[in-house]
Amino acid sequence: MHPVPKDIDTPEIVIDREVLERNIRRMAATAHSKGLQLRPHVKTHKIPEIATLQLAAGAAGLTVATIGEAEVFVKHGAHDIFIAYPLWVGPHQAQRLSQLSTKARIAVGTDSVEAAKNMADRLGTAVGGIEALVEIDSGHHRSGVSPARAVEVARAASRAGLRVTGVFTFPGHSYAPGMPVKAAEQEERALREASRLLEDAGFEVRRASGGSTPTAALTGATAATEMRPGVYAFGDAQQLELKRCAMEDIALTVAATVVSRHEGDGTTPRRVVLDSGSKIIGNDRPAWATGFGRLMDHPEARITALSEHHATVVWPDNSELPALGARLRVIPNHVCVAVNLVDAVAVVSNGKLIDRWRVAARGRNT
Amino acid sequence: MHPVPKDIDTPEIVIDREVLERNIRRMAATAHSKGLQLRPHVKTHKIPEIATLQLAAGAAGLTVATIGEAEVFVKHGAHDIFIAYPLWVGPHQAQRLSQLSTKARIAVGTDSVEAAKNMADRLGTAVGGIEALVEIDSGHHRSGVSPARAVEVARAASRAGLRVTGVFTFPGHSYAPGMPVKAAEQEERALREASRLLEDAGFEVRRASGGSTPTAALTGATAATEMRPGVYAFGDAQQLELKRCAMEDIALTVAATVVSRHEGDGTTPRRVVLDSGSKIIGNDRPAWATGFGRLMDHPEARITALSEHHATVVWPDNSELPALGARLRVIPNHVCVAVNLVDAVAVVSNGKLIDRWRVAARGRNT
Repeated sequence: MHPVPKDIDTPEIVIDREVLERNIRRMAATAHSKGLQLRPHVKTHKIPEIATLQLAAGAAGLTVATIGEAEVFVKHGAHDIFIAYPLWVGPHQAQRLSQLSTKARIAVGTDSVEAAKNMADRLGTAVGGIEALVEIDSGHHRSGVSPARAVEVARAASRAGLRVTGVFTFPGHSYAPGMPVKAAEQEERALREASRLLEDAGFEVRRASGGSTPTAALTGATAATEMRPGVYAFGDAQQLELKRCAMEDIALTVAATVVSRHEGDGTTPRRVVLDSGSKIIGNDRPAWATGFGRLMDHPEARITALSEHHATVVWPDNSELPALGARLRVIPNHVCVAVNLVDAVAVVSNGKLIDRWRVAARGRNT
Repeated sequence: MHPVPKDIDTPEIVIDREVLERNIRRMAATAHSKGLQLRPHVKTHKIPEIATLQLAAGAAGLTVATIGEAEVFVKHGAHDIFIAYPLWVGPHQAQRLSQLSTKARIAVGTDSVEAAKNMADRLGTAVGGIEALVEIDSGHHRSGVSPARAVEVARAASRAGLRVTGVFTFPGHSYAPGMPVKAAEQEERALREASRLLEDAGFEVRRASGGSTPTAALTGATAATEMRPGVYAFGDAQQLELKRCAMEDIALTVAATVVSRHEGDGTTPRRVVLDSGSKIIGNDRPAWATGFGRLMDHPEARITALSEHHATVVWPDNSELPALGARLRVIPNHVCVAVNLVDAVAVVSNGKLIDRWRVAARGRNT
């Protein structure tokens, strides 16, 4: 692998353009082979240039989490957006959503009678320009209703004036070792049951949307019509440790410098400290992860502690500690939160810095 | 307590101006009563308006973690900055540090012969304008050398042309239940021993800098000359659970809306979902914390899971679930990372929105 280009000061997020493009092409081919539409979740990267690559590779539209993210991508030319979130719109948000629906096809999530009513109350007649997908809980137990309650929510949304076009679910419980297959089966079953119940109640189910990156290769087309993976574009240490990607699929790393180095003495650990703290790699750490991320070229090293500007890396005993000033590449546990911490990312191709992309939708939380 | 002002869309970070000012005055009085200089760590807030309040209340200068943060605060009028970090400067960073030292009194941290040499090599004669404090490991085992090695580092820094004026330590191991007193004792001992060794070697130790928020009330003036707490300005759920602040000292909350609500049915938990996910409250969760933050007006509720835009809150059985659309106030576990996620914060006084402050040093990681 190429070293960190000399003209990059650390810490900085670096995207490998070739690996990114390969990941995008591969997921597009996977979706195509299953007869599924691909609607990548762009909260992962928040970067219009990458959305453009995904759409060019055949994505049917984009998925976002907030109205603010939708605004950014519509401004950059997207015309079919799913806000996959059970929105409860405030007064300013209602106006913005109404505006958006005049510029692009907009669908939102809903999982309650009350949220559908609130949206109708706030948006007035503009609500008719918005599609709604009922959120189904397929086992993650976050938002979403059971398939049995889908009809009740769909009817409320429909009465409120929204155009109910289907159902969606997020099988987030796929993010644990051994879980992807089980979560994909539950997702399939939940989407199928909810779709059947809605159709029995007279709704035309044109969209049944599922899919996380861990389940993407498993999502079947018998129940789903589209999938919404996000992380696949970059890969990260979670996907690596869940064996949902390989080291050569990692398109995003954080260039970091060894700023402190300690051989250890029995009471203190043998370690180096990198300048890639939680303010650039993020602090997500599931219980099953081996640490707060991984090192690209040192798979045995463990990031055992993270402060805002320090990553403490315990080094294997049989391997020499890297020198002070050495530049290493860190793979974050969760790329979505890492990218959200910076205004721009460096883009490299064949080891050369070729561009910087602005993280245009960073921090668009509302 | 006041409800979230009506004109705020959620999620948004909200600062209570009166509580903030009281926290600032109280820490200034604590430092004064101990004969210590207060040099607040402004990585906590990254907001020039708050630094101005701290300096007006008697702070001797500011502490930052990066050259980029120093640039922002110098631009806003600060003239005495300590970059409390073992800097390894890259080519662009060296130029910027050199520039900074012409505009303000700048001190940096160092814990190795190599980093001191690197700084001298990169900065050339400009290195003489920069003070260095040797970083001491007082038990946190992150960066820093043992007191016994302080002289070796100080001599290297001095040979490299830096003006060595003292020592510093960060007792980060104070962030655990029962640890503040022990960590403060170790900090005191480490600073005293390192100072003595440096003076024996002919260095004049004018600064001995310590202090985290958990140890701030405990840091003694017998060894330290200054302290650098940061979080005290806002308070957060970690400080609350460590009993280093009370609920009425919490100056920063995240205004959030209930977007999903589930009574639970034996297989699924009784819960609400708030729109304050990890992209606004941050994902720091020490093993001893009760959850991913706390709810201001519902101390028994537990934030059991956090996604980027969802906070899952399990509710006590004997208390009614809040309504869909209800607006709650969330106390992040770690304010420093929460503030770093937004471009601006709302400022309220007596329950009224009076201002928005820009997080001017957000994302200044290099």
